[in-house]
Amino acid sequence: MTLKAFDMLISELMMLPGIGRKSAQRIAFFLLKQPDGVLKKMAAVLSQVKDKIKPCERCFNLSEDGLCAVCRDERRTAEICVVQDVADLMAIEKTGEYSGKYHVLNGAISPMDGIGPENLTIGKLLERLDAEAVSEVILATNFTVEGEATAMYISRLLKNRRIKTYRIAHGLPVGGSLEYADEATMMKALEGKREI
Amino acid sequence: MTLKAFDMLISELMMLPGIGRKSAQRIAFFLLKQPDGVLKKMAAVLSQVKDKIKPCERCFNLSEDGLCAVCRDERRTAEICVVQDVADLMAIEKTGEYSGKYHVLNGAISPMDGIGPENLTIGKLLERLDAEAVSEVILATNFTVEGEATAMYISRLLKNRRIKTYRIAHGLPVGGSLEYADEATMMKALEGKREI
Repeated sequence: MTLKAFDMLISELMMLPGIGRKSAQRIAFFLLKQPDGVLKKMAAVLSQVKDKIKPCERCFNLSEDGLCAVCRDERRTAEICVVQDVADLMAIEKTGEYSGKYHVLNGAISPMDGIGPENLTIGKLLERLDAEAVSEVILATNFTVEGEATAMYISRLLKNRRIKTYRIAHGLPVGGSLEYADEATMMKALEGKREI
Repeated sequence: MTLKAFDMLISELMMLPGIGRKSAQRIAFFLLKQPDGVLKKMAAVLSQVKDKIKPCERCFNLSEDGLCAVCRDERRTAEICVVQDVADLMAIEKTGEYSGKYHVLNGAISPMDGIGPENLTIGKLLERLDAEAVSEVILATNFTVEGEATAMYISRLLKNRRIKTYRIAHGLPVGGSLEYADEATMMKALEGKREI
């Protein structure tokens, strides 16, 4: 059976992260059962989203204007939290516990993938430190080899600038059981012990 | 953070089967990282697919012409295999073992969901039996309450027409272990025993 339009739809869907052939087929059948207007609307949203959303000129968060909602918010305090991706920023925002600003690196240093510091927004971060009154920098990159290397690299750059630099805490997750924690996490949890 | 275009994209993605908020967000970030051309192409495929693919006039398989590729194929034998959905038809085609034709019901009888025989393509199946030389009908609806009821309903209709009617076999799946088979399947596997 050769159905060019259907196969094309499946190929397009299989490009998406987490969508294999089976899911793509399931979604394609679902889409074919929708009224035409639903598909046309979805197509419109898809083709317009890149025009409407641009990176924030200052912090590289998603934005519909020059500056993102966080950068425009004058109640935000003078910290900068450095994250790899906008998804990380959103995860922190969801806690409601952080009231400072952000800086999105757009990745992490990864020589294996040919990503060096110059491919990230680190230069722009340094410019911000010159231009803005920043009280402290919190490095919230992932606890992967790449994330750790990136945090290390930035912390070294910041040492000369007399800006307090923090790394977010390692430890057991909330609800985590000691019995099931891996050794490395357990070790970090002990290292990070706090008086109560 | 209010990003209307981004939230709209996530809502659209969450409409898809098997896509929750987390997956939708992951896909949305992925899409934003793609070049604009990729999104525009995806949008074009989406908005055109319903115009290009119509149900086959005879069997309700997907088709880009009046008749689908199976119905147009003159080497197909005179059986009709009755399935609930096009996905089932594709699953059977993939085996390469069936050389007859199909009839897609577009669902199964389900009084709970307000789906009666008149909502399926059963009337059209009967018309085909009058018009075409059909050697036998194989009922390949699902082994669910609805699928079984639909098979039962159709088999009763066909009884008067002296057309051989079959139901596909119940039994243990290939590679299935007796130890883990549920009782109902085990019972059906015993009932369906064949001399070897």
